[in-house]
Amino acid sequence: MCRWIAYRGETIPLEQYVTAPAHSLVVQSLQALESTASTNGDGFGMGWYGEHPEPGLYREVRPAWSDENLRYLCRHIRSHLYFAHVRASTGTPITRPNCHPFACGHWMFMHNGSVGNWSRLRRQVEALIPDELYGSRVGTTDSEAVFLAVLGAGGDRDPVGATLRTLARLTDMVNRDGIKEPLRFTAALANGRDLYAFRYAANDKANSLYYRESGQNLLIVSEPLDAERAHWKPVPPGHMVIALAGQTVKLEPLVLAQRAAAE
Amino acid sequence: MCRWIAYRGETIPLEQYVTAPAHSLVVQSLQALESTASTNGDGFGMGWYGEHPEPGLYREVRPAWSDENLRYLCRHIRSHLYFAHVRASTGTPITRPNCHPFACGHWMFMHNGSVGNWSRLRRQVEALIPDELYGSRVGTTDSEAVFLAVLGAGGDRDPVGATLRTLARLTDMVNRDGIKEPLRFTAALANGRDLYAFRYAANDKANSLYYRESGQNLLIVSEPLDAERAHWKPVPPGHMVIALAGQTVKLEPLVLAQRAAAE
Amino acid sequence: MCRWIAYRGETIPLEQYVTAPAHSLVVQSLQALESTASTNGDGFGMGWYGEHPEPGLYREVRPAWSDENLRYLCRHIRSHLYFAHVRASTGTPITRPNCHPFACGHWMFMHNGSVGNWSRLRRQVEALIPDELYGSRVGTTDSEAVFLAVLGAGGDRDPVGATLRTLARLTDMVNRDGIKEPLRFTAALANGRDLYAFRYAANDKANSLYYRESGQNLLIVSEPLDAERAHWKPVPPGHMVIALAGQTVKLEPLVLAQRAAAE
Amino acid sequence: MCRWIAYRGETIPLEQYVTAPAHSLVVQSLQALESTASTNGDGFGMGWYGEHPEPGLYREVRPAWSDENLRYLCRHIRSHLYFAHVRASTGTPITRPNCHPFACGHWMFMHNGSVGNWSRLRRQVEALIPDELYGSRVGTTDSEAVFLAVLGAGGDRDPVGATLRTLARLTDMVNRDGIKEPLRFTAALANGRDLYAFRYAANDKANSLYYRESGQNLLIVSEPLDAERAHWKPVPPGHMVIALAGQTVKLEPLVLAQRAAAE
Repeated sequence: MCRWIAYRGETIPLEQYVTAPAHSLVVQSLQALESTASTNGDGFGMGWYGEHPEPGLYREVRPAWSDENLRYLCRHIRSHLYFAHVRASTGTPITRPNCHPFACGHWMFMHNGSVGNWSRLRRQVEALIPDELYGSRVGTTDSEAVFLAVLGAGGDRDPVGATLRTLARLTDMVNRDGIKEPLRFTAALANGRDLYAFRYAANDKANSLYYRESGQNLLIVSEPLDAERAHWKPVPPGHMVIALAGQTVKLEPLVLAQRAAAE
Repeated sequence: MCRWIAYRGETIPLEQYVTAPAHSLVVQSLQALESTASTNGDGFGMGWYGEHPEPGLYREVRPAWSDENLRYLCRHIRSHLYFAHVRASTGTPITRPNCHPFACGHWMFMHNGSVGNWSRLRRQVEALIPDELYGSRVGTTDSEAVFLAVLGAGGDRDPVGATLRTLARLTDMVNRDGIKEPLRFTAALANGRDLYAFRYAANDKANSLYYRESGQNLLIVSEPLDAERAHWKPVPPGHMVIALAGQTVKLEPLVLAQRAAAE
Repeated sequence: MCRWIAYRGETIPLEQYVTAPAHSLVVQSLQALESTASTNGDGFGMGWYGEHPEPGLYREVRPAWSDENLRYLCRHIRSHLYFAHVRASTGTPITRPNCHPFACGHWMFMHNGSVGNWSRLRRQVEALIPDELYGSRVGTTDSEAVFLAVLGAGGDRDPVGATLRTLARLTDMVNRDGIKEPLRFTAALANGRDLYAFRYAANDKANSLYYRESGQNLLIVSEPLDAERAHWKPVPPGHMVIALAGQTVKLEPLVLAQRAAAE
Repeated sequence: MCRWIAYRGETIPLEQYVTAPAHSLVVQSLQALESTASTNGDGFGMGWYGEHPEPGLYREVRPAWSDENLRYLCRHIRSHLYFAHVRASTGTPITRPNCHPFACGHWMFMHNGSVGNWSRLRRQVEALIPDELYGSRVGTTDSEAVFLAVLGAGGDRDPVGATLRTLARLTDMVNRDGIKEPLRFTAALANGRDLYAFRYAANDKANSLYYRESGQNLLIVSEPLDAERAHWKPVPPGHMVIALAGQTVKLEPLVLAQRAAAE
């Protein structure tokens, strides 16, 4: 289990939510409250959009709580849309390419969860990545494979549809042969303008997700950053948050397409 | 606060106490029980004696719990006298030279504790290091400075006396001008044959220390490695364990020399 | 291009060939002479056999020349069969799982070379790895994939035959569709008792390989470790060195099986 | 010997000089031309001024040439005054706090050179740092000590005078007792508005330094970033470049004050 935050709104320094709050993401790296793993010290990462169409990334294998570069960068980098993630590995190695967020073209993705028994399902999930995107697979996590599978399923034109189609396939995989392995997918996806977040699980409890709106600013988090619980709305299991540029934030049920019909 | 173990006895693989026990040192790096810092993820280190007169060291800035090199080395390196340490920094940077244990010639040292307000006392403590040892100061911790001060106070010929003389000076420093800063010193010192451990504090509670004897084997630890509490004897505050080669292990009170008389 | 050494013989400290010689492997990491990449600073690794049936590994992303752990370990670890490797990446990320040597069960492998246009051929090569070994793929290099393909082709029972069968398939891949991509394979393989080294290329010049025998001791290297050139015998392109336990070292031509016939 | 660049002018992405040019600083990390150390792979760092009065820092122990974070940050961070530095250690450990640039308050400093026999002179140079700045000494390099000595000598009010006074003292130290140790000081200093660069040596050849002006933009470098040699003016030994905000860039001789008179 990992912890993450996603922000979209006015351009602000990253520190405003990554390091400054009482229960900031960096504090959560050392002591998360709503996670089975209370320590999220297996690397971390940040991704942000600025003047370049592709996001910037800073990923590191050390824990977030002791990284002095992180503090400088959070103070100096400003963005209107950014992700930050602290990792508790579910088994894959602690390497920079295995840290979230992942970027491909102008898309960025991060994930809290896991895909069944990864060593059993890995080849099937990797097979969902089309050849032209396979070169973008620089790590070995389930999360990166799912991201590239979503892009391969048409994520650039239809991010929500492609995510639902991919989740439907993953759900088939974890249910196949009556094995019923757990699938947990609490994830965020963005392209520099639009932000999407998903809370879904099959055969398991969905990992927590909350959001807070304040004017045009939207913050989506694994767990609240402060004690003012009233400000934070839980995203129910099986729901998604859709924040399109210039539109009202929508909370919608996440309905998996009937696979047979969809394909 | 850090956690550490020191072993002297039959030659065994390091894994026997570093990674294998239920509450091994590596488990403690993620979840210590008797420490104010439950996470000890600010680097770690091991030091061991083998066929070479000087100890070997392996120190790394990543947490012990996720370091695959550590597991291989613990399985393959065998020693009759070794130290292992997981660090929770009290403020100095997370660098390899700041990780314990420290080595100088055939001496090795590690520490759990702190020396008052380090930024205020640092210069005074560093002044205890003689010029000929100052080149061995490769890090910036209080712990390394105290180690070199002990060696400078005659540690090679008289390790217990030099440690007590240094503790007396440090106690003077933390008490000077009526400021009463805390000094905590739970430490181990070895030369390849003899092993010494100290539990001392001034103006504060002494950090925990236990030991277990089994035949010729001696294990000294910050906290027990298993639930069999009866096997572990606490070292009382203000005491030290002295394990000289070929002699019975002694538990003795740690009596600071009267400074005026001693110098 | 990387540089490596492999040793089999009397039990000696690793330092004897890794750090001590005038043109040691660590010196080569900063200044190789027979390599297109004069700097081999993209991580390094060592693997060795001791009392445990599986080899130990120490792999690190920093350059070998400045790693103080490496110097301690080379002085303290002794082995009768060990590998050491300094890496110049051909494009895959600088992570520990991408550093050589690789281990799987009691087998160990390291490689200097590359497999055609890796982003184009990667899926085909990964498809050679059987499902039961795919979980052992923890990195993303061509080298690790080839190692697991060799084991999948029966490497445990027939290491030379499995290597030749795999090289035949790789040669087919780089020649397919008339594209003629370069394949360079200068590699070492061991199981704790036997040591094998291969020098092969298709569509390119084979990377250099030398060996030196002295009594029962055998050293195989990318380039000589000292100026006494007469002691070092070049392995000709398309040849292999076979050093079975208790037998004379053999230098043999490396004849690829006719694929059609072999399968 | 290290390599560095300093820029002051229009706000630009760091990549324009750190990674983009034919002989960029990152290329120099792998292959410097005018340095005794052709490889500068012992860590690197960048520092830049933005909207915050204190500079941002990114420092890392890995070589610059393979750091993917560096490429992202150089593309996304924009600044009107920034430093970048690739390190070839002269003996002190490869740690982040030992990487340049160093920051203290709104001042930033980086250095190429060395201060005599550092293990002999270290205590004397550290003694130049006043107590109130000694807490800012987080590493162990000669360079950081000299920077803090300059600030301690009044660098905030009178940066040029304080640097000259400190160089005079260092020159005395390397000449004392007729030992004549080499002192090399090719360094840059900035406060967010003004940029200073110095080329000085005692008992040795001064490390190279060049600058290029183009409109209001000033670039100062260890060695030219491209083959257009005519654009790059060498800074003669014993000279300094002074670029005060809103003023013409001045090249002036660096005249050490008579110590006796100055104090």
